[in-house]
Amino acid sequence: MAERQRIILAQRPEGMPDESHLKLETAPMPEPRDGQVLLRTIYLSLDPYMRSRMSAAKSYAQSVELGKVMEGGTVCEVMESKHPDWKAGEFVLGHIGWQSHAAVDPKGLRRLDPKDAPISTAVGILGMPGFTAFAGMVEHGRPKAGETIVVSAASGAVGQMVGQLSKHWGLRVVGVAGAKEKCDFVVKELGFDACVSHHSDSLKDDLAAACPDGVDIYWENVGGKVQEAVLPLFNEFARMPVCGVISQYNATGAPQGVDNLPGFMRVILTKRLSVRGFIQFDHADRFKEFMTDIAPLVKNGKIKYREDIVQGLDKAVSAFQGLLTGKNFGKQLVQVGEDPTR
Amino acid sequence: MAERQRIILAQRPEGMPDESHLKLETAPMPEPRDGQVLLRTIYLSLDPYMRSRMSAAKSYAQSVELGKVMEGGTVCEVMESKHPDWKAGEFVLGHIGWQSHAAVDPKGLRRLDPKDAPISTAVGILGMPGFTAFAGMVEHGRPKAGETIVVSAASGAVGQMVGQLSKHWGLRVVGVAGAKEKCDFVVKELGFDACVSHHSDSLKDDLAAACPDGVDIYWENVGGKVQEAVLPLFNEFARMPVCGVISQYNATGAPQGVDNLPGFMRVILTKRLSVRGFIQFDHADRFKEFMTDIAPLVKNGKIKYREDIVQGLDKAVSAFQGLLTGKNFGKQLVQVGEDPTR
Repeated sequence: MAERQRIILAQRPEGMPDESHLKLETAPMPEPRDGQVLLRTIYLSLDPYMRSRMSAAKSYAQSVELGKVMEGGTVCEVMESKHPDWKAGEFVLGHIGWQSHAAVDPKGLRRLDPKDAPISTAVGILGMPGFTAFAGMVEHGRPKAGETIVVSAASGAVGQMVGQLSKHWGLRVVGVAGAKEKCDFVVKELGFDACVSHHSDSLKDDLAAACPDGVDIYWENVGGKVQEAVLPLFNEFARMPVCGVISQYNATGAPQGVDNLPGFMRVILTKRLSVRGFIQFDHADRFKEFMTDIAPLVKNGKIKYREDIVQGLDKAVSAFQGLLTGKNFGKQLVQVGEDPTR
Repeated sequence: MAERQRIILAQRPEGMPDESHLKLETAPMPEPRDGQVLLRTIYLSLDPYMRSRMSAAKSYAQSVELGKVMEGGTVCEVMESKHPDWKAGEFVLGHIGWQSHAAVDPKGLRRLDPKDAPISTAVGILGMPGFTAFAGMVEHGRPKAGETIVVSAASGAVGQMVGQLSKHWGLRVVGVAGAKEKCDFVVKELGFDACVSHHSDSLKDDLAAACPDGVDIYWENVGGKVQEAVLPLFNEFARMPVCGVISQYNATGAPQGVDNLPGFMRVILTKRLSVRGFIQFDHADRFKEFMTDIAPLVKNGKIKYREDIVQGLDKAVSAFQGLLTGKNFGKQLVQVGEDPTR
């Protein structure tokens, strides 16, 4: 009898999650009921937000229940359809989580046309991360040509889109990344004006040198010492969209890294900073605009992207650990099954 | 020969300023030149922003130079005029600083009519502090009827206006103050719905109990432990106008009070908080609206105010120390000369 693979949340992690928290198991292949479709996963998207879904602490969305399949966006192929509108062989964007197969109600699935764009982009540059960059910039970054933006986690799924959109809109774009090859990538491949490494002992000076006219927008993906390095550089009326604080997600007990709240408040006050947390689904009404205005730039190659694909669901946990520590290089995907379109 | 009194910035304070930093001295009475007027100070306004003007550290305005008269807003009477548009006996809003007399170019003076409102209000409820409340709320608090606002430094010059405006606009208003008499005042006299004391060991619980529907706006005047108590109560899409962080102004070395930047960032992210520093002069274009819409509410007694007036310029330094430590009860003024309108 056929089996599926899945990863369940076996216990809630304190600090870095590992295989004791995220447990790979096999289960019987599901049978679609009438009105359902059977999906097989081609790509599973790994995203930092998943860390908060593993915790019991309240966030903007419910935690995953213990014993349930870990949630996540997926690119799938329809294997079998018991719904009149769908047929086997179609590709879809779904949200079936960290598993190889699922039988689902097709409501909420989005059809993907491989002629339109590589299907993997539906969970990357043209999916949630790309849209996060667009919505956060338009709503909260409020860029103006000639301004300077600093993009943390510059080569990541969101950061690469933030930086390229900002170049498209006429800004000076300064990335912050870890490894030298990531810095080289965002400058040479994506066209950022500069990139500094947060591994450098001279991070503050390096960033200041890269931002001779100060910083008008800081795209906050990471928190910690990168934020600390940006603080003295803010211009008046600067904006700080807070997309994530990945450096803190595994913090246990005492906070990690920099911890100068009074210093932050002082900059907020004297520079009249706008600090705004957000999550892309609050701005879902802009998705059409994103697909109309921005997707063509991806399709014609003006906006580039890089994916980091590991092979097999059994690599998901280590890849997720790598994502939280910056080991990924580009949008992190797990290839769970064959991609017939590549 | 007649003399004037003045207080100069003799040295820059680290921590709390005292008479060694703010030095009272006498100087010859100034002579107005042609086109100038000679002013005598009736009221000197003491405001928390003055602390930052004493430091060399860059803020949104220049520091006061060493040896110069400490700056500040004043209500004055024209003693002698060598300008055709002004005559002796007129009352004016000026900015001549911590001194009893000055000869100035009248450009920038605003004429005050004692029949319109008590002249002291020109540096209080109808002046910079009152307008700070209005501009910050309209621009950054963005109140909606039925929401809950927490106002720190509730009985202070700005706080009393923030709270009463919020009541006027239909919000639930919860003050935070120190002394019990201040809490009683804002509830019984100003009509706040509740007020909790930041001296209470159960501040967090008290505040939570006073905000059963959470907090939609937190008016930040103080920082520190009040901010910490509000953080867990924020509703989604809450706003936090940052008007001041008075608990930190005298901090030397290690930051005072609470210091949990990662915790703050987490709330910003998950609650999609808007944190916005501001200064009233950025919104000067709204001053006319303030005088048209809000001043009548003060004049007809719908919006009340309380002043804390000390007598004599020699009391200015101790009054300013009291302002920074919350000893004042209401808008802090120094009466430097006789008020013929009272």
